[in-house]
Amino acid sequence: MADLPKHVDVHEEGPREGFQIEAGPIPTADKVELINALAECGLHHIQVCSFVNPRLVPGWADAEAVCQALVPKPGVDFTALWFNENGLNRALAFADRLVLSGGISLAASNAFTQKNLNRSHAENLDAMRRQTQVHLQHGIAVDRIAVMAAFGCNYQGDISPAQVVQTVADGMAVAAEAGCTIDKLMLADTMGWATPIRIERGLGAVRERWPNLPISLHLHDTRGLAVANAHAGLRLGVTQFDTTVGGLGGCPFAGQKGAAGNICTEELVLLCEEMGIETGVDLDRLIEVGRMAERIVGHMLPSELIRAGSLNAFRRKAA
Amino acid sequence: MADLPKHVDVHEEGPREGFQIEAGPIPTADKVELINALAECGLHHIQVCSFVNPRLVPGWADAEAVCQALVPKPGVDFTALWFNENGLNRALAFADRLVLSGGISLAASNAFTQKNLNRSHAENLDAMRRQTQVHLQHGIAVDRIAVMAAFGCNYQGDISPAQVVQTVADGMAVAAEAGCTIDKLMLADTMGWATPIRIERGLGAVRERWPNLPISLHLHDTRGLAVANAHAGLRLGVTQFDTTVGGLGGCPFAGQKGAAGNICTEELVLLCEEMGIETGVDLDRLIEVGRMAERIVGHMLPSELIRAGSLNAFRRKAA
Repeated sequence: MADLPKHVDVHEEGPREGFQIEAGPIPTADKVELINALAECGLHHIQVCSFVNPRLVPGWADAEAVCQALVPKPGVDFTALWFNENGLNRALAFADRLVLSGGISLAASNAFTQKNLNRSHAENLDAMRRQTQVHLQHGIAVDRIAVMAAFGCNYQGDISPAQVVQTVADGMAVAAEAGCTIDKLMLADTMGWATPIRIERGLGAVRERWPNLPISLHLHDTRGLAVANAHAGLRLGVTQFDTTVGGLGGCPFAGQKGAAGNICTEELVLLCEEMGIETGVDLDRLIEVGRMAERIVGHMLPSELIRAGSLNAFRRKAA
Repeated sequence: MADLPKHVDVHEEGPREGFQIEAGPIPTADKVELINALAECGLHHIQVCSFVNPRLVPGWADAEAVCQALVPKPGVDFTALWFNENGLNRALAFADRLVLSGGISLAASNAFTQKNLNRSHAENLDAMRRQTQVHLQHGIAVDRIAVMAAFGCNYQGDISPAQVVQTVADGMAVAAEAGCTIDKLMLADTMGWATPIRIERGLGAVRERWPNLPISLHLHDTRGLAVANAHAGLRLGVTQFDTTVGGLGGCPFAGQKGAAGNICTEELVLLCEEMGIETGVDLDRLIEVGRMAERIVGHMLPSELIRAGSLNAFRRKAA
């Protein structure tokens, strides 16, 4: 386990992922309460909203209201998601309280790009060239490449490590043209195809080509293997994970109605703690926030740990 | 991954674990339908019932009726659970259709033994001596040692690998006194304390002492890490797992109301398939049985895979 990291950076995306998929409406005040509670858990990165078309994603019609109500906290970066210039402009209005950075977002599956964005991969590269310019014009650095469907795709089936490497290389070319320096790669298991062996192969191929670039994993628990996949990633030195408290979220893609959301933040934190990897997160406090998330959405969340409680909680009782 | 097994033996315990914990009552015909459907999936071992006191476990008051209704199938071993001579006698009545074998069941946690059985560890060893004799008198071989709470305990906290080794050694002494040959060890994560590192340490210590004895893992998904724990076990050459379809079951022990049950059979099978390990199980068929189990118990089961469907199902669509 020579590659095991000393520290893992947990990017909490529960508010953004969770509230976009719930039938709702969920009161703005509840969203803000959850975000503020997360900020008290020792998390340093919390994605708080999505600046998307409210007709398409009614759950984020109140993105501005949520941002206005945030209580800034030293050491906690609040981030947001957007997909176009309109979204970026809405985010820029909160440049005083959001940490804004741009990414080049591609998919390793052409079929996914076509279905999800109605573009070919080449057209998507062009769109990313334009979007990169827009970011730079607004003074926002473009410093990461994200690869969706990196481990398999509902529309295309298996995705080879070579396809992932080619997708990253395509993104690197877009960045180089614009004079941007990429300092992070994100591999997303968008539709829950990852398994430990696919993580090892995909991640291995990317690390072989770009040995010095930190890699972030965005895992979904669609088929119940997210924690095993995270474990495989940790053993290969992954230092950043996107997670959602309680396992908030879901999968909006074909044929997976009712599918689980992202890997649960608290289960990843437990795994890291047990492996001697620091996260800075107070697990018992986070578990309480997971229970709060369940009350807010009004139905059971996938997290098992919020029902069982931490090992430390039982250790204290046993002592 | 030199220790990776070629084949894994899946012991399906969904009927026994699941129907004992459901509020019920669940009709006998539904139980039998589920068992027969499981037998059509390529599973070779199915634990079909528990011969326990019906006042304590009303869900298994119909154990005899279930056994009577079973359709024997070549290549499928139907097994049952019992804890005392009365239970053994009830099982013996179905010696024509059940595969009966005896075990020495201990716990690595003295506090658990005391709370669960109202016995000290020494008293439990005495009880196992007597029970071994009873089995032998009935012509039933005693060929395995099971260690509960092998990775931690709600009542005692952490359990060291040395405690697990000592517990197995105590069981070996009971077997040796009775002239029994132990050919399998089972380590049970009774209250969901296992994490990959605990699996590696506990299993490592046991294998160092008894390098040639096959080890079976009985994992609970209490804190969401069961699949990661199974992955760690597979890498250490574990060749047998107890599982439950759909994740049927739960945890009846202190402070874990609503906790998840055993590792889902279908998620373990997916993991094995992806690692190139044979199980003989038809995953798509098993997923359908998981959905049947959900209909029978009348509430959502923990399995994510029964909602998402297998990778093969999507591969066929994508092709």
